[in-house]
Amino acid sequence: MQIAATIAILGGTGQQGRGLAQRLAMAGERIVVGSRDPDRARAAIAGWVPTVPPIEAADNVTAVTRAGVTILAVPFAAVDALLAEIHPHLRADSLMIDVTVPVAFADGRMSMIDVPEGSAAQHIRTRLPASVRLAGTFKTLPAHLVDAVDRSLDCDEFVCGDSDEARAEASALASRLPGVRAVDVGPLSRAASIEHLTALAIAINRRHKIREARFRVIGLP
Amino acid sequence: MQIAATIAILGGTGQQGRGLAQRLAMAGERIVVGSRDPDRARAAIAGWVPTVPPIEAADNVTAVTRAGVTILAVPFAAVDALLAEIHPHLRADSLMIDVTVPVAFADGRMSMIDVPEGSAAQHIRTRLPASVRLAGTFKTLPAHLVDAVDRSLDCDEFVCGDSDEARAEASALASRLPGVRAVDVGPLSRAASIEHLTALAIAINRRHKIREARFRVIGLP
Repeated sequence: MQIAATIAILGGTGQQGRGLAQRLAMAGERIVVGSRDPDRARAAIAGWVPTVPPIEAADNVTAVTRAGVTILAVPFAAVDALLAEIHPHLRADSLMIDVTVPVAFADGRMSMIDVPEGSAAQHIRTRLPASVRLAGTFKTLPAHLVDAVDRSLDCDEFVCGDSDEARAEASALASRLPGVRAVDVGPLSRAASIEHLTALAIAINRRHKIREARFRVIGLP
Repeated sequence: MQIAATIAILGGTGQQGRGLAQRLAMAGERIVVGSRDPDRARAAIAGWVPTVPPIEAADNVTAVTRAGVTILAVPFAAVDALLAEIHPHLRADSLMIDVTVPVAFADGRMSMIDVPEGSAAQHIRTRLPASVRLAGTFKTLPAHLVDAVDRSLDCDEFVCGDSDEARAEASALASRLPGVRAVDVGPLSRAASIEHLTALAIAINRRHKIREARFRVIGLP
C-alpha cells in the first residue's frame, strides 16, 4: 500500500534525501523531490535506481502543493528560509516529517547547537501552520548508509510527534525501509533526546573511525 | 584481575547500587557499600548473593577513604549533599564514576532536569577535587535489570570521561558485567547525550509498558 498520494522530499539531492527518495520509491511510494533547481534535480535523478512510479522533481513550492507528506531533509541551518518559502503552500492536514539534527562542526569537533525551543523539531513546530501535523524521525539513520540503497538498514528508528496520528503515519513510513523497526517514543518534546542520540552516533563514528553507528533497542518485543 | 584495591559504592542499597555491588563482587572485585547507616546496610547485604571476598559496609566517609574507585549511585537530587560530605576524604588520583541521570517525575510525566553545567556529570565535575578523575557510565542500564543479578545485561554501555585513563578504567569496569560491551564516546561533555539516551529508554519503557529498554550500537565491530 502507498502511505500517501505523494511524498515531497525537500533537500532530496543531499545524501540522506537521495537515499530516502530512492528507498521509498522502491517501496512503491510516489515521490517528488523538491529543489531550488528542478532541472539539476532531474539530472541527478537520472543517475538513481529506476523505480515505478519514477521519482519526479519540482521546485519546492510545487512539490509541497502536491504532497500529503513532506520530508524536510535539508541541513538544520537551511530550515528557517525553506519554511518561510513553503509555509503558505503547505496543505492543511498534511504531515511534515522533520529529519534534521542541530549539530555543528568546528575545528574538527562536533557539538550540538543550542536551540531555544528545545529541539530542531520543536523549532520547526513554531514555524508551521497549525493545520500541518509534525513528526520527527529518520534522525538517527547514518546518511551514508541510507544512501547505500541496496543495503538493509538493520536498526531501530525513533519516532516522536505532536499527535498519535502523526506518529502512526511516520512510523508506517519508517517501517517501509528494509531493516528498520519504528519505535514510538511519544510527544514532540522527545525530539531533544533523539537528536542527542544522533550526536552520540556521530561521536561514536568519529572516535571509532566508523561511519555507520546506529541503534537497536533491546528489551522491546 | 581486580580493577582496584577497593570499590566504594555510595547509595549501594538502592536498586541500581545493590545490583552493581553484587555483580562486581561476583566478578571478584572488593566492594564496600557506603551508607549513612552502615548497620542497616549490613543487614541488607546479608540477604544478597554471597561473594568472595564478601561485600562490606561502612559510612560514606570511611568507604571513600579506602577506595581507589567510587561509584556514585545515588539519585541526582542527593548528589550535592553527598559530595560536600565526602569531598575532603576522596583519595587523590582516585576515580569517581557517576551513574546519575537528571530526570524528574511529576504528574506521571518524566522530564529532564535542566542542569546549568550541561549534564549531571559536568555538574559533579565542578564539585570534585581536581585530583579526582571522573567518568560517567552505568547511566543507561535499567536499574530493574541490573538488580536481577543472575541475568545477562545484553546491551552496550556508554562511557565518557575527563581523560583517556578515566575512560579506560571505567570501560574495564563496565565490561566486567556479563553481557555488557563498553562504548567509549569521548569527553565528559558527551554525558548530556548519554543522559538523554536514558530519558529515551524511560520514555520507551513507559509508552510500551516494558521495564528493560536498553541499547546496542549497530555498525561498531
